[in-house]
Amino acid sequence: MKKNEISILGSGLIGSLLSIYLKKRGLDVHVYEKRADNRKGEYKEEGRSINMALSDRGWKALEKAGLKEKVLPLTIPMYGRKIHDEHGNTSFMPYGKEGQAIYSISRGKFNHLLMDEAEKEGVQIHFEHKIEEVDLRLNELSVNNPENGSETISSEVIIGADGAYSSLRNAMLKQVRFNYKQEYISHGYKELSIPATKEGEFAMDPNALHIWPRGSFMLIALPNPDKSFTCTLFLPFQGERVSFENIRDEKDIKGIFQNYFHDAFLLMPNLVKEFFGNPTSSLINIECYPWMLNKAMLIGDASHAMVPFYGQGMNCGFEDCYILDGLIDKIGTTAWELVFAKFQKIRKPDTDAICQLALENFEEMKNEVADPKFLVRKNIEARLHSLYPREWVPLYTMVTFSDMPYSEAYAQGKLQEAIMDKVMRDPLITQNWNKMDYEDIINQLDKAKSV
Amino acid sequence: MKKNEISILGSGLIGSLLSIYLKKRGLDVHVYEKRADNRKGEYKEEGRSINMALSDRGWKALEKAGLKEKVLPLTIPMYGRKIHDEHGNTSFMPYGKEGQAIYSISRGKFNHLLMDEAEKEGVQIHFEHKIEEVDLRLNELSVNNPENGSETISSEVIIGADGAYSSLRNAMLKQVRFNYKQEYISHGYKELSIPATKEGEFAMDPNALHIWPRGSFMLIALPNPDKSFTCTLFLPFQGERVSFENIRDEKDIKGIFQNYFHDAFLLMPNLVKEFFGNPTSSLINIECYPWMLNKAMLIGDASHAMVPFYGQGMNCGFEDCYILDGLIDKIGTTAWELVFAKFQKIRKPDTDAICQLALENFEEMKNEVADPKFLVRKNIEARLHSLYPREWVPLYTMVTFSDMPYSEAYAQGKLQEAIMDKVMRDPLITQNWNKMDYEDIINQLDKAKSV
Repeated sequence: MKKNEISILGSGLIGSLLSIYLKKRGLDVHVYEKRADNRKGEYKEEGRSINMALSDRGWKALEKAGLKEKVLPLTIPMYGRKIHDEHGNTSFMPYGKEGQAIYSISRGKFNHLLMDEAEKEGVQIHFEHKIEEVDLRLNELSVNNPENGSETISSEVIIGADGAYSSLRNAMLKQVRFNYKQEYISHGYKELSIPATKEGEFAMDPNALHIWPRGSFMLIALPNPDKSFTCTLFLPFQGERVSFENIRDEKDIKGIFQNYFHDAFLLMPNLVKEFFGNPTSSLINIECYPWMLNKAMLIGDASHAMVPFYGQGMNCGFEDCYILDGLIDKIGTTAWELVFAKFQKIRKPDTDAICQLALENFEEMKNEVADPKFLVRKNIEARLHSLYPREWVPLYTMVTFSDMPYSEAYAQGKLQEAIMDKVMRDPLITQNWNKMDYEDIINQLDKAKSV
Repeated sequence: MKKNEISILGSGLIGSLLSIYLKKRGLDVHVYEKRADNRKGEYKEEGRSINMALSDRGWKALEKAGLKEKVLPLTIPMYGRKIHDEHGNTSFMPYGKEGQAIYSISRGKFNHLLMDEAEKEGVQIHFEHKIEEVDLRLNELSVNNPENGSETISSEVIIGADGAYSSLRNAMLKQVRFNYKQEYISHGYKELSIPATKEGEFAMDPNALHIWPRGSFMLIALPNPDKSFTCTLFLPFQGERVSFENIRDEKDIKGIFQNYFHDAFLLMPNLVKEFFGNPTSSLINIECYPWMLNKAMLIGDASHAMVPFYGQGMNCGFEDCYILDGLIDKIGTTAWELVFAKFQKIRKPDTDAICQLALENFEEMKNEVADPKFLVRKNIEARLHSLYPREWVPLYTMVTFSDMPYSEAYAQGKLQEAIMDKVMRDPLITQNWNKMDYEDIINQLDKAKSV
């Protein structure tokens, strides 16, 4: 039987970054990945990746690992949302203040870089190693790979960074008093693309996240360094007029795109092939607790998979690594149970908050961004933030451009939301928003906070 | 490979009753039970049964199967709660109107009767048959028993009546878009007992459910036909002063009983042996959806395990069988998918409601029943019900003494609760409740309903 100091399950984004952090401490780190090493041979995407958007929390975690400069060339900054209406008109809503951006990056290429860096540090990644069983009493993994068959690996510490369908979590689920929730939303998604133009240029503004909000469904597009856009179509699985179950042939899909996404349609020569060739994926929200049992712990999506609508899944997972590493800085590597116990206690309220925000933001993206009043609301909040930069910080800014704990951002966001709801009830707000009494709004917020 | 028409997983209360219903239709019904037949040899309880309380929904389902008269002799009617305070004083709160009762019954003996009746009808119960795997695509069970090893059984229909830790549900959990939640509450429980007196009599009033509410914990006792009481002690697992983790020896447990349950303590000669001999069990709430996949469906605790504080777990499971059987009356046995699809759609809002009520009733039992104002509140509601028997029906009565859908009872209960909260805000309510304007309260309810 092999004995590892640290076994990490999953060589995805979170598992790879975490392995780098731990290896830098001189620990013996092994990563078990059920898939083959997809850096070898021709690079193939799976056709189910929503492009990632790196924001402050993610950058901070990469910086601590010394990786910021290496990642930057893979990214494209997006300074705001570009909203496309049904007539092809567009409007731009900045995400934050001038210069603030989120950064589009391909999950596949980013993952390759992180695995390369992990191996450079000396991490051993064992590909095509499938976890068959986890013995949580003995901290033993039963691992199977095509070459050697099954073997048992004993570990000082096991960390499950193995995503929404985590094997470690499945083992915990059978333990007594493990609270668990998995919830699928009514919508699924499909990856599509907008290639570069014949001239080899971006077909649309590359420095924005493009959204075509249509009420019960939407299309989004994020830029890639090769001048293409990765698009994601979100539709209800069934029931609605426009739903996956109601798109059966070329005519159906073309009809929908001509009708609802006409400007995008003109840029998508591979639409039909991609729509019927790529899988339809579902979207799950997972919450559970506790995250640890003895010296095994869950991290990232394994403990809190969220829907992608706040662009925080990866950033939150990276922040998990950053916070865990900070606790190891303080406590050391001799009392793992204590590190894990502190980690889950500190972190659980924050991951609950961002899971909830991600669910709520879906409504905003599908519906509200298309409402002219929504723009006014964003403008008022931006004005408040520029007049009172400490007192009023828009929720999106707290989540995306700060490292304030998500739970605090959530609480402050709810207070601000209630005040903004009141402000927006003024029937003349679209005309008057520019000449409002902004100080009064700040006073209302102060009052609400002191309750 | 064997081919069954109907395979039911679990020969517990729900599986047994359902097998009787289906066998009476002339179907070929097989029940697979992982435990041995505990009717053979000396009868042994497991030391983890909360006694059951049969109420109207349960009786109605038994009656349809022709079993009411056979079950009645096993039961003892309880007409109300008998509350014991810390000084040994008791007060009685009727559950309903005169004559209305819930019926204490031992889970073990009740289950024996139902299995006997199922076998009389011709149902085949296969004991010591463990479900190893369920193939939901082919509707095949892989079943293991000590004599024959593993075999594969193909079924027209599979129904999982296999409780909170259902194998069928575990198979469904791996399917795409299965929503699932399991949640353990902070409290666990331990079975204890009060034996008959030396004279062979009940040591307390047998026609009541006895409660010792103590805020963060409580003791209850239900009568048995052998003149003993089955007691259940509910304590937090940890954290509180009085919790399972803080009871380590004879002195601890005796100290707690002398302090908090003195009158009961005097009647419990086996307290120490039982406390340390019986397991500490946890309490889980489970909700999931959908309940069906093709021709397999979950029923009873497998689809909606609830905490025991409304005494409705078994009654709800029996009502599941009654409603399912009613749908088969209408639709027949040639379109099982349709029967199952209708069943889950009708039933899910109701089981959600009773799961929620069971969680909420724990607070009432631990805390409020000890509050003198709670008695006043119950009196006002009883008066309202006697003056306006159709307009105002206390929530407990709707749940326990009617077959109104749980979701409707829940909704009406919430309206009444809001009104009663207002009524109880009167600081002089304890003196004045008798001379209030009851018609005004009914008018408030009418108004609330019409919104």
